[in-house]
Formats: sequence, C-alpha cells, structure tokens
Amino acid sequence: MRGEFEQIRKVWAPLAAGAPGAYELRNDAAVVTPPPGEELVVTLDTLIEGVHFLADDPPDLLARKLLRVNLSDIASMGGRALGYLLSTAWSPRIDDSWVETFASGMAADQKEFDVHLLGGDTVRTPGPLTLSLTAFGRVAQGRALARSGARAGDLLYVSGCIGDGALGLLSRRGELRILSLAEQEYLDRAYRLPDPRMTLGPALVGLASACLDVSDGLVADVNHLAEESGLQVTIETARVPLSSAASSAVAADPDLFRVVLGGGDDYELAFAAAPQERDRVVALSEQLDLPLTCIGHFSEGEGVRLLDRDGRPLVLAGRGWVHF
Amino acid sequence: MRGEFEQIRKVWAPLAAGAPGAYELRNDAAVVTPPPGEELVVTLDTLIEGVHFLADDPPDLLARKLLRVNLSDIASMGGRALGYLLSTAWSPRIDDSWVETFASGMAADQKEFDVHLLGGDTVRTPGPLTLSLTAFGRVAQGRALARSGARAGDLLYVSGCIGDGALGLLSRRGELRILSLAEQEYLDRAYRLPDPRMTLGPALVGLASACLDVSDGLVADVNHLAEESGLQVTIETARVPLSSAASSAVAADPDLFRVVLGGGDDYELAFAAAPQERDRVVALSEQLDLPLTCIGHFSEGEGVRLLDRDGRPLVLAGRGWVHF
Repeated sequence: MRGEFEQIRKVWAPLAAGAPGAYELRNDAAVVTPPPGEELVVTLDTLIEGVHFLADDPPDLLARKLLRVNLSDIASMGGRALGYLLSTAWSPRIDDSWVETFASGMAADQKEFDVHLLGGDTVRTPGPLTLSLTAFGRVAQGRALARSGARAGDLLYVSGCIGDGALGLLSRRGELRILSLAEQEYLDRAYRLPDPRMTLGPALVGLASACLDVSDGLVADVNHLAEESGLQVTIETARVPLSSAASSAVAADPDLFRVVLGGGDDYELAFAAAPQERDRVVALSEQLDLPLTCIGHFSEGEGVRLLDRDGRPLVLAGRGWVHF
Repeated sequence: MRGEFEQIRKVWAPLAAGAPGAYELRNDAAVVTPPPGEELVVTLDTLIEGVHFLADDPPDLLARKLLRVNLSDIASMGGRALGYLLSTAWSPRIDDSWVETFASGMAADQKEFDVHLLGGDTVRTPGPLTLSLTAFGRVAQGRALARSGARAGDLLYVSGCIGDGALGLLSRRGELRILSLAEQEYLDRAYRLPDPRMTLGPALVGLASACLDVSDGLVADVNHLAEESGLQVTIETARVPLSSAASSAVAADPDLFRVVLGGGDDYELAFAAAPQERDRVVALSEQLDLPLTCIGHFSEGEGVRLLDRDGRPLVLAGRGWVHF
C-alpha cells in the first residue's frame, strides 16, 4: 500500500479540491465557516468491520453508507450538509485498489450531497478495518431541531417507509427467500445505501417540534423522542408505512412485523408536529414527493404505547405479538 | 461492561455538562457556534493500541495525550480550543474501571484547557483499542495560520525544547539508562503528556507568516513549512533548544542528536516570522515565559539545509552525522 503522504496526495486531496477551508489537506487542521447567522451541526459515527459491516461489502457502497448515516444525523437536526473529516484505520487486507474504490464511493456521494472532504487522519491497524467520519452541517442560529421539543397533543410522523433497512439485512443473510428476487434486491439496497433526508430535515425547521432519525429502530427511537420530551407516545402500528417489498415479507411471515418496528437502519426522520400544522405537513410531503405519514401522537405520561389496527394495546413477547 | 446508553449517561454526559450545544449528549448531533466574526478550526487524530500507544499506558494519560495532540493542531492554526467529539472503539480487555479512569483524564484536561465533550460515538471492537478525537477551535475569520505563508528572508523559530518527546519514548524503552532517574522521568513525561501551545498559537496570528506543530519530527515538519511555502529552509542545528535532560543525553551519546532532530512527538510550534518582527517575538516569549528560539531562516530554493555549529552542511547517513 502507498505511504500515508502519497495516499493523501493521490486519493484524498482530490476529494478536498474546491473546499477553501481544506487547504488541499496541506495543513494541520481545516477551517469551516458557517454563513452569517448560522451555526454548525456536528456529528460522528464509527463503523467497524465484523461489527457494523461485513468484509465482503463493496468498498464504494461502504464509503457511501458511512457518509450517509452521518449526514442523516445532520438532517435530523435540521441541518444542511457542509463537509466532513474522515478517519481511516486500514487493516492488513486493504490494498491501494480497495482504497481507490472506497474513495470513488465518497466522490459519488460528494456530488450527490454537495459536500467535500475537509481533512482527517489515515493510519494502519493490526485489527479490523475501522472507519470514523465527522460530518458538518449548518443551521440558522438557535433553530436546530432537537429530540426534546414535543408537546402533549403533537402528532407523530415518519418519512418514507419503515423496516426496509432491517429486512434488507435479513435478505442479505438469505433469510427472505420467500420474496421475489426484485423485492430482495430492493431491500438489500435499502440496507446498503440508505437515503438520508437532507431536504426534509431543513424544511422541518419551524414546523417540527422534535425530530430524530430512525437508526436504532422505530420503537426505540420514537421512545427517545417521548423520553426527552417528558411525554408518552402512542404508535398506531397499522399506520406505519411499509414498502411493497416489506408488505410482502410481513404478509408471508407476520412475525417479521417485529423486525419492521424494532429493527434499525431506516434513516427516515421521525418527528412531532402540532395538529394545526397538518396542512403544512401534507403540503411539504407533496412538494418533496416524499410520504410523511402520521402514525401516532404524544400525550402526558411516559413510554411507548403500541396499538394494533383495532386500537388494542400490543406488547412484544418472545417471537411475535401478544395482546393484553 | 456497561451498555452503550448507560455508559453515555454515567461516564460521558458529565463531561458534556455546561456545553450548551452538546444537549447533554441527548441528540443526534451537537451544535457549535463560533462567536461573531470568527470561524471554526477542525482537526481529527486517531490513536491505535500497539501502533500509537502501548497496552500498559495509563488510561488517564492516554486520554489526555489524545486530547492534547489534537489541541496542538488547533493551536498551530492560531485557534483557541472550543470542544471535541470522541470516538471510542473498546477492545475486549477494556472494562468499566478502565473507561472511568480514561474519562477522569479527559475531565482533568477539560479543566486545564477549558473545553467540553460535545458528542461522539462509542462502540466495541474485536480488534485493538481505537480512539479518534475531533477537536474544534475558533479563529478570527480569514486569520488562521497556515504552513504556506513563509517568505524568503523570514526567520525560523521553535517554541520550548526539541527532542524531549522522542527521547522520552527511548527512555520508556529503557534505552537511556545513562541518564539520572529524574532526567528519565522528565523525558518520559514529555512523551506521555505533551504540552500543546494553546496560548502561543493564537498570539502568533498577525505575527507568524507560517506555522505548524512539530509532531513528525523537527526536520520533517520544518521541511513541510518550506515545501508548502515554495522555499528552502536552513536549520542551524547548534541553536536548536534542548532541555537539560536532552543535553545530558546528547552529551553522553552524540548520536542521539539524530533523535532530537528527526524524532517526533514534540508538539512545540515551529513558525516563520519576518526579521523586523524579532522584537515582538522576544516580547511574546517574555510575556508567555516560554522560550521562542530562532533556529534558522527561509530563502529561495527548496528542501532543508542543516548546518553544524561551524556553519558546515550536515547530512544524515546511517547512524550519525556526516559532513560533506
């Protein structure tokens, strides 16, 4: 493998071209300047081979997922993406060609999301490939979305479809052979290449009272919204939006609905909005051509209440759902 | 070991207390707001067990070194430290007590440098302990120091003493038994706990024409200054400032002067300043009670020229110095 300085010059500096504060990666640090009246949103995620991804994951898709999961956190705070720092610890199996394919994935998503590499660190590790990315976004001063702002009576919305990411992981493992090949490929892609809601997030500033991205799983993440807001949240599970592939999966094996509600890796936004904002949410959904589905509401109390299609409480027990 | 959420609440959230944009680590991302007229300086460094530190390094000192090497990069750009994001990938041997000692080191240096934890990610790895830190600083808009601004005729200065870090690593390995115990301990500490020049860096804005921190080794780093500025640099090696411990080491074994000039981990600042600024540099040195020593100058040309005490060129060949 190339030495550190040569790798920086040949592989990474081109990804920093055009970003003024990156100094072509020639300085000790980068400079990031939010526009007047705006502040920075910053987040960091680390992915480890064998824990968060598999050794045979295509390097370019891995790069794009690493960037996208971080950008999703920026969007969930209402931020617009600006750039990122990258930390790569290469394991012994990684060669120059692998690094170049990885960088080509970054290049593709830099165009897609209008961001640049600003700096970072590249080292070698005797252990598993370890990737860490710090993403920067910008948001109007004092207007960042938080998890804690929901009020009793607010409605709970999610963007897009829920469950595709977690079902995609099952599909990759060959556990969804009941589905058509096209459905399996759709789910697999949803897992490998999530679509962070970079346009929706900033549009929710001034509209949503609380927001996060669904990465740990719908129930766990919606519980975070409730907990941080000091409220109870009710999810009407029949209203949770499913893709047609996910619907097929759940129709074939109803137990998979647990995966839909509890699995992670959706990277959709879940947010609270006051009932009187309903028309604005509908208009925004049409404008973005993105489903924004009301799946429940917040009320005084604590915890998550799940309701089935007849309004009866559901609890998770072992494999499957139990009424009580 | 505690679960991720419990670790965040018990160990990390206290380090974020008092930092408004950190939201007590309860959101997807943090908000960082530079004061009006200032912009952010951002940098990232990754340390891996067995590569950058040893398994028996005390966790609290390791935490402090991780923070300090990043803060040094902020200082070298003329920035004042603001805060940091932390990525920790715990190897199987790490337990709660280790994590708490590590966090206690962070807490000590947070006070020392007036910074807060703003966010991060904590995961487990089957490989070696891997630590990555992203540091944030602030600098007046457009005033960040860079490596590229030196002009022909500028003088080359370094802060503090050179060589203690690299000699400290030798001392730790038991290779400097010729020194007194106090000298060995002094050097060992210099290696384990470098002193980033957080006051000097911002004071050099408007005074230095180029700056970096000496982390790769004096000759290599000064070469970076020359290369990025399109100049040649001359180092009068007899003027390179040594601590009394380093002087003892070199007196006992003159070959160790190679380690002084070529080793790394000094975290002093090397900077260029115009000759007419000499009085200001002297005054700054007195004000900060920190040696700022002129050790050479920049001229047209390229590369690094090393001169011995008689003004004769030196080149590095094998073990020892050769005149030519």
